[in-house]
Amino acid sequence: MNFADALIESCERKRSRVVVGLDPRADQLPAALKGGSLAERYVAFCRGIVESVRDFVAAAKPQVAFFEELGAEGMRAYREVCAAARAAGLPVIADVKRGDIADTAEAYSRAYLEEFPCDAVTLNPYLGRDSVEPFLKRCRDHGRGVFLLAKTSNPSSADFQDLQVGGEPLYLRVAKAARAWGDGLRGSRGYSSVGIVVGATHPAQSAELRKACPDLLFLIPGYGAQGAKAADVAAAFDAKGHGAVVNASRSILFAWRKGGYNESQWAQAAADAARIMRDEIQAALGAR
Amino acid sequence: MNFADALIESCERKRSRVVVGLDPRADQLPAALKGGSLAERYVAFCRGIVESVRDFVAAAKPQVAFFEELGAEGMRAYREVCAAARAAGLPVIADVKRGDIADTAEAYSRAYLEEFPCDAVTLNPYLGRDSVEPFLKRCRDHGRGVFLLAKTSNPSSADFQDLQVGGEPLYLRVAKAARAWGDGLRGSRGYSSVGIVVGATHPAQSAELRKACPDLLFLIPGYGAQGAKAADVAAAFDAKGHGAVVNASRSILFAWRKGGYNESQWAQAAADAARIMRDEIQAALGAR
Repeated sequence: MNFADALIESCERKRSRVVVGLDPRADQLPAALKGGSLAERYVAFCRGIVESVRDFVAAAKPQVAFFEELGAEGMRAYREVCAAARAAGLPVIADVKRGDIADTAEAYSRAYLEEFPCDAVTLNPYLGRDSVEPFLKRCRDHGRGVFLLAKTSNPSSADFQDLQVGGEPLYLRVAKAARAWGDGLRGSRGYSSVGIVVGATHPAQSAELRKACPDLLFLIPGYGAQGAKAADVAAAFDAKGHGAVVNASRSILFAWRKGGYNESQWAQAAADAARIMRDEIQAALGAR
Repeated sequence: MNFADALIESCERKRSRVVVGLDPRADQLPAALKGGSLAERYVAFCRGIVESVRDFVAAAKPQVAFFEELGAEGMRAYREVCAAARAAGLPVIADVKRGDIADTAEAYSRAYLEEFPCDAVTLNPYLGRDSVEPFLKRCRDHGRGVFLLAKTSNPSSADFQDLQVGGEPLYLRVAKAARAWGDGLRGSRGYSSVGIVVGATHPAQSAELRKACPDLLFLIPGYGAQGAKAADVAAAFDAKGHGAVVNASRSILFAWRKGGYNESQWAQAAADAARIMRDEIQAALGAR
């Protein structure tokens, strides 16, 4: 099945545009998760989160860096977390932000779109088309998806992404490349399996990108802990309320830390945070 | 010790500007390396290469993708390969090309510049200064180094890297950022620990970058299998023959496949290839 179609159908089924970012952090795990190695606790924590939020989210986005940091055992844990999200019926977007040449790109692509139980990856576009091609092949052959970093949520994203190239910012040029590279990967809903990452922290640029690229799928990080709200992301959606998914990590995972909960209620707090975020975005989308 | 100083001293000690890229490939390993898992064979192969070439090269650059592809066991192997190169007295440049935001960048930085036995990493600059800052901190605190991708060796590097931004190509803008970000990390030899990656396949751009940034350390991939020769890289060096190191992977690792050797002589073939490459570059540098 086409990845874009699968993601949109998940959004419809759940009536949710929320992606839960699975970014465990050693110093913020609930104390209730005792015993075992840190990698094992990451798996237990992420499994608990997935089970709690599965009804309120459309997809999961595990951030590989926090697992990779733990070496071999961490990568085993990453696989388990991806498998748990998939088993819960959630499309899995591996947040790896890779980008490399020819056969190195092939190795990364084989790893994250064949070996690991993942449905899509985030990619850095700086190396150009041939660094993305092995991933596009797996979009075509295995129904996978990719999201190219266009305008990232961090403050320094302006350093290079905002530079003007031929009368338009670099991030817009990247978005146009994503459109071109996704040609032939369009699903039945009008979106292709090659989308872009656009930070919720940049609503003006997001609206500009949506206007220029009406048929491009957006993965939008930066909601919640990074400061963006539902009104900031509404312009990224089409008239039917599709075309984008919004990620939150810390504001869901560690919702119990914000008060109003005991530490033992971490899973319930995550479920509540995911549900509230879902409702906020659905409300901002109005009748769509 | 300052990373740039350490790398230059290694070049002087070995009278070599060669970096051996440790990029094992399952389908090209010598049959002599039988038994054990693929990850174990990667370790055995890379150890054999390091032992064979250690007298002819100034540093090692293990490409993480080929290990990462093997999951948990692959990452354990990566650590062993890095440790073996370090034990042979070679500075280790982890070719990871990472780039991510804030605390994700912190996690990657802790992983590759503290947890793993590596001395430097390659980084993708697309996310800007704050994505590099956690690595700069480890350059300051632990004497590590980074190489920002400026102009990569692949054909599609032109897609975005060559775009004109304010009258200069993006890769030059990145190089200038590397200079600025390396301020305060300059060693006694005049180079800072923040260098750039410049493909040997682009000699004109390399010369342009050297002219614009005389004090920037270059890591130059693309020699050998990707087609570049000694004359293509000579312009990247300063008058003393410093300021750059040149990587070759396949042309050293799999030299026995080119003929003139039995398969059992894979280690000797690698040693010969590294020695010849060293001599070619030293000759092209002339009296420098």
